[in-house]
Amino acid sequence: MAGYVATVEKLIAELGRLPGVGAKTAERLAHHILKVPAEEALALAEAIRQAKQRVGYCPICHNLVESDHELCAICRDPRRDHGIICVVEQCRDLMALESAGTYQGVYHVLHGRLAPLQGISAEHLTLESLERRMRSGTVREVILATNPNLEGDGTALWISQHLGGLGVPITKLARGLASGSTLEFANKEMLVDALNGRQAFHP
Amino acid sequence: MAGYVATVEKLIAELGRLPGVGAKTAERLAHHILKVPAEEALALAEAIRQAKQRVGYCPICHNLVESDHELCAICRDPRRDHGIICVVEQCRDLMALESAGTYQGVYHVLHGRLAPLQGISAEHLTLESLERRMRSGTVREVILATNPNLEGDGTALWISQHLGGLGVPITKLARGLASGSTLEFANKEMLVDALNGRQAFHP
Repeated sequence: MAGYVATVEKLIAELGRLPGVGAKTAERLAHHILKVPAEEALALAEAIRQAKQRVGYCPICHNLVESDHELCAICRDPRRDHGIICVVEQCRDLMALESAGTYQGVYHVLHGRLAPLQGISAEHLTLESLERRMRSGTVREVILATNPNLEGDGTALWISQHLGGLGVPITKLARGLASGSTLEFANKEMLVDALNGRQAFHP
Repeated sequence: MAGYVATVEKLIAELGRLPGVGAKTAERLAHHILKVPAEEALALAEAIRQAKQRVGYCPICHNLVESDHELCAICRDPRRDHGIICVVEQCRDLMALESAGTYQGVYHVLHGRLAPLQGISAEHLTLESLERRMRSGTVREVILATNPNLEGDGTALWISQHLGGLGVPITKLARGLASGSTLEFANKEMLVDALNGRQAFHP
């Protein structure tokens, strides 16, 4: 059996390291890359190279930042309320909240969640830096916006237990029924959250 | 709303041009690339660059070839039977046949199939070069191995009609039940193929 030429084998192997890309998908992507005009493929290669060389993390909130700025766009925005910190697991969560367009405070990206079974403990996250921010005396509220699942809740619990005594009020995102959903398809946990978090009705 | 930094936006856009990669997947892949060690991300970028710079197509069969060889590994292999040409749509099909390990002839990669509705006609494929090979006087058989679907069959029909008169016998791959399948789940087309192509039973 003749195999792929070495350069193509290498490309398939590297593509196969991407998350969710199996052997067949890697092969398909490699053939696509071989087929498109050189400019298009080289633009992708260059975008990857530049992302690794030019993008870093904000020293305050750990959000993504271009290397030509010291702080991220949110931390250097004077119109944002720097006294309210919303704690998220990933930059993607930050982007999701930003796209809702209503939050005016700043963020703190943990870059993960506590997962003892996978060996991810407090020192793997940016919790020390969160504590430093909370001790600075300028923070009026910390909103926990970790994911509403076992590990996200565990991470929120850890923060409230370890950093709850610093004199900064800690809140968490409201939970209950997802907007646009129906009661019929809500699971037990959603209904429990919705009942526990019930609010006064103002017609 | 704050967006991603420009370099990340660009990476997401380039990843989103890959087939089967939607906006959400592109975002996920970009975050993965930002997170992995620089060596791993740069290895992918380099693999893409090298694939575009070093890989070309064999001038005889149009299979993939490293630029340091004139002909592909199969066309320059003296142990293969250069009198039998197996015609496939894509390099991937060639690899699938090679992995079966039984075919000893050479190939001809069409780089597509006729699809009049998408504007893909004979001149978009490597059919002229196939005709030249068939006219060379050294070919004893052409095996059509286009895909068993409407467009693959149409392409095979075109070849048999336009190149059938060159004195080279044209065959096609056997069709019928897929090995390992069950009659119960065979569709009508498979059963028609299996009945029409029935063979003498040699116990």
